[in-house]
Amino acid sequence: MTAPRTIIVGGVAGGMSAATRLRRLDDDREIIVIERGPHVSFASCGLPYYVGGEIQDRASLLVQTPESLRARFALDVRVRHEVVSVDRQTRTIRVRDLATGAEEALDYDTLILSPGTVPPAPLTGSEDGIPVATLRTIGDVDRIVETLSSGATHAIVAGGGFIGLEAVENLARRGIRVTLVHRGALPFRPLDAEMAGPVVEELRAHDVDLRLSDAIARVTETGVVLDSGDALDADLVIDARGPRPDTALAVAAGLPLGHSGGIAVDAWHRTSDPRIFAVGDATEKTDAASGAAALVTMAGLANRHGRSAADAIVLGVDAVEPAEPATGVAILRVFDLVIATVGASEARLRAEGTPHRIVHTHPTDHAGYFPGAERMAIKLMIAPADDRILGAQIVGGRGVDRRIDVLSLAMQTGVPASRLSRLELAYAPPFGAAKDAVNQLGYVADNLRGGLTRTLQWHELDAAREAGATLIDVRSPAEVAAGAIPGSVRIPLDELRSGGTPLPKGPLVVHCQVGQRGHTAARLLSAAGHDVRNLDGGYLTWAAGRTATEGIRP
Amino acid sequence: MTAPRTIIVGGVAGGMSAATRLRRLDDDREIIVIERGPHVSFASCGLPYYVGGEIQDRASLLVQTPESLRARFALDVRVRHEVVSVDRQTRTIRVRDLATGAEEALDYDTLILSPGTVPPAPLTGSEDGIPVATLRTIGDVDRIVETLSSGATHAIVAGGGFIGLEAVENLARRGIRVTLVHRGALPFRPLDAEMAGPVVEELRAHDVDLRLSDAIARVTETGVVLDSGDALDADLVIDARGPRPDTALAVAAGLPLGHSGGIAVDAWHRTSDPRIFAVGDATEKTDAASGAAALVTMAGLANRHGRSAADAIVLGVDAVEPAEPATGVAILRVFDLVIATVGASEARLRAEGTPHRIVHTHPTDHAGYFPGAERMAIKLMIAPADDRILGAQIVGGRGVDRRIDVLSLAMQTGVPASRLSRLELAYAPPFGAAKDAVNQLGYVADNLRGGLTRTLQWHELDAAREAGATLIDVRSPAEVAAGAIPGSVRIPLDELRSGGTPLPKGPLVVHCQVGQRGHTAARLLSAAGHDVRNLDGGYLTWAAGRTATEGIRP
Repeated sequence: MTAPRTIIVGGVAGGMSAATRLRRLDDDREIIVIERGPHVSFASCGLPYYVGGEIQDRASLLVQTPESLRARFALDVRVRHEVVSVDRQTRTIRVRDLATGAEEALDYDTLILSPGTVPPAPLTGSEDGIPVATLRTIGDVDRIVETLSSGATHAIVAGGGFIGLEAVENLARRGIRVTLVHRGALPFRPLDAEMAGPVVEELRAHDVDLRLSDAIARVTETGVVLDSGDALDADLVIDARGPRPDTALAVAAGLPLGHSGGIAVDAWHRTSDPRIFAVGDATEKTDAASGAAALVTMAGLANRHGRSAADAIVLGVDAVEPAEPATGVAILRVFDLVIATVGASEARLRAEGTPHRIVHTHPTDHAGYFPGAERMAIKLMIAPADDRILGAQIVGGRGVDRRIDVLSLAMQTGVPASRLSRLELAYAPPFGAAKDAVNQLGYVADNLRGGLTRTLQWHELDAAREAGATLIDVRSPAEVAAGAIPGSVRIPLDELRSGGTPLPKGPLVVHCQVGQRGHTAARLLSAAGHDVRNLDGGYLTWAAGRTATEGIRP
Repeated sequence: MTAPRTIIVGGVAGGMSAATRLRRLDDDREIIVIERGPHVSFASCGLPYYVGGEIQDRASLLVQTPESLRARFALDVRVRHEVVSVDRQTRTIRVRDLATGAEEALDYDTLILSPGTVPPAPLTGSEDGIPVATLRTIGDVDRIVETLSSGATHAIVAGGGFIGLEAVENLARRGIRVTLVHRGALPFRPLDAEMAGPVVEELRAHDVDLRLSDAIARVTETGVVLDSGDALDADLVIDARGPRPDTALAVAAGLPLGHSGGIAVDAWHRTSDPRIFAVGDATEKTDAASGAAALVTMAGLANRHGRSAADAIVLGVDAVEPAEPATGVAILRVFDLVIATVGASEARLRAEGTPHRIVHTHPTDHAGYFPGAERMAIKLMIAPADDRILGAQIVGGRGVDRRIDVLSLAMQTGVPASRLSRLELAYAPPFGAAKDAVNQLGYVADNLRGGLTRTLQWHELDAAREAGATLIDVRSPAEVAAGAIPGSVRIPLDELRSGGTPLPKGPLVVHCQVGQRGHTAARLLSAAGHDVRNLDGGYLTWAAGRTATEGIRP
């Protein structure tokens, strides 16, 4: 009896995690990894930072080589080889050596597909215009660095998602003038408008030329022409528009795709053929917020699912826990700003018609009395029926990573929004507050759930005032002087209780800087018989929404 | 009908959270806060940092004043007043004005006790020796700063717990020579020996004179004499020995204490008298790891329980969720080191006779290929029967706060140790790794649970070798040259598979630097028929344990 053979198609995150786990589980198995490119197991998430020079050592991107994988894990890794077909009847694949064109047939007992994504369709004119590069491989960054080093001064980035924003930051870090062309009204679609406001400001503060609601119509010999008609001179285009799952081989093999367009797999990463597994960015996941099929392209999921597929193959599916739905938790640095998201955005919940409740807060990362506290903006999406967390967004600096992980974990373990108030989180003055930012979110959610407070969202304010509501600003005169909502009545909170200023009989909207004193004011006015709502997130959320709204009309 | 009256005894964390929440819930209620000291609502956790000068603005420690609390929340705050007795029959307290000595009787509908702690018993000789101060009040730090400013050069800190270590760091920051006198064999009791090793090194690297397993026998006119007989000259003693719950008023009122010595309360913070609530450091909590009664003195719990008591009083206990057991999650900065703990230590589990499984890892805070990655040491305590997390300890730098919060939350929500491998955590190269430090812990826990690997703890190594085991070091020659366990056989991992070096037939223990390559080696050798165990946490855990063991024998 010969050892079983597993062939893995794709040698980066998901494929390589599967391969090394297979070896640790089964020392006898024959494991062959087929990779189209010249490198396996490279740090694809690090590529933009190598372009920017923050990662200086190119070798550090190459985590493993075929030789090191053979020595340590007895893996048969074949780079510059492509699987051209799968014959499921005979359990055979045909592999082409891309250097020689020679083809070979290989039998398999199990097959793991981890092909990743394909680049977006080429930009019109890119064949004879200025250089256009994606940011997907070591080869890509070698070409980009070469172009930049030969005197480039202006680059255009197409697409304001993860890779696009990382590219913008890293090009600017090199001293390159950058134009970001983004199809949406605001960059980074997972963020709602008022949360994207600070991102727009940060990009502009770093002299990034923002072209929103626009796209590259064609690449020319000297630059690009946009859909809007604007022509821009440039030396290089980085095409960071969203990639699509690479499903060609799966489709040719007759394996079904899901509604999202990714390869359909069960909770053990099996395709419709029990001998063929699929993991990584090419596969469809289940969205944790909606329960619907979705594409979630995260390196962490690819690694984990690769490992689970190996477990299922060697130990059997009964011994392996099914994959959980994906929350898609993500974090991104944009210059001095940190952006993080998990679950669904308000925009997505609206589009889906999913009922939701919104909370905005602006806590600091650690106790205000300790030097260096940095403010962040947090937005929480909650299901009103059962207080379930549907999503969260954070924009700030230090401490954003920690809070998004806590919120992501709360979402994954089903902690209701109100119960965030009761979580025990680590506190010492340099690190947090006795009432942590996450606890504060829970307090607000609890007050909303219990009907103790009613809030109004920033984009609902104009309509409420047109319907007759009076806006009361309870901040201090110094805060008002630094910026206020036009037409508000100004009564500092500590004067409100004394009742010196008569208030109109009609509905009231109160606001402070971040929402906390507004809540106290709303409770006080409510006890006095007023119909009152607190402006959620206070002046800061309103102002960020205003920035974003102005940002979309250049 | 008059408004109900709630009297609150103690105006810092728990008491003040209760008072302001009561007001927001009930605008009519009469709320009286009685505070023995001259200040309410001050930042007690910030006091050591004011001594060190990191917090420079004394006013920032005073978060609220009686005047601001009256204006904003209509609270009747009486500082320098003491409750001398409680008459539960008549629902009356007697209050003494500490300035005039005048006493007054006050009726209550509900009473909330939040008296906090009492200082340790005075040190012998402190009445006519050098100044001795605790670090509990604004008055304390005023006196300490005055002494330091008048030419003090050497301070002695008694007690190496939270406050003691914060005091040491902050005195050293001011340029004061510091001796730490600690009763235990190692500082910071929540850490096990091998985790405290780096703390000992950090303190010594900052020229702190460590006197472990010792105590102050008496204070003299020029310094102190220790139990060991050593006499030390000094200008000041900071007494940071553990405080005890202040239960005198509760005991005099006939309210029972729990086994831990704290005031006994139910999950809604009610004492045996349903009209009397108690919160904060004076009360007994339930320990999350053991389910036993315990004292857990954390500002976060005091705040939260104060708020919950207010909810129970106004909304009724049926409307309030019961308090969860306390994990006691804690974090502390000691110079450039960050220490964090949650739940039970190995030492405590041993003492209790609780079965446990241990995992040590040494991950970096973010991807190794991105510059500036900092290594941390993590230790996880697991219940073998059900894979439940019993506790965790982390020592490192950046990213420790984030991981302790994730582990604390996993413990609070019942995530089994193996499932840590499957948590979705935020990743981008500046912030984490596709396989986060917490995921890696889960992988090791999963391998242990499934019997895929067997490990040996650092303190079991000598016995295993005496019983005939051969130790194999699979690290690279460069790592071995930088420090190795004496007498090991050195075979780099990538040469192990080729089988060039013959291995003895008896039991083997393999180790690498942190445990990961050791696991791969153990799987390989196990497949080849060897009886093999992996040294948990590798060379780094063994070396830290050695430092700690040497540290206790000066």
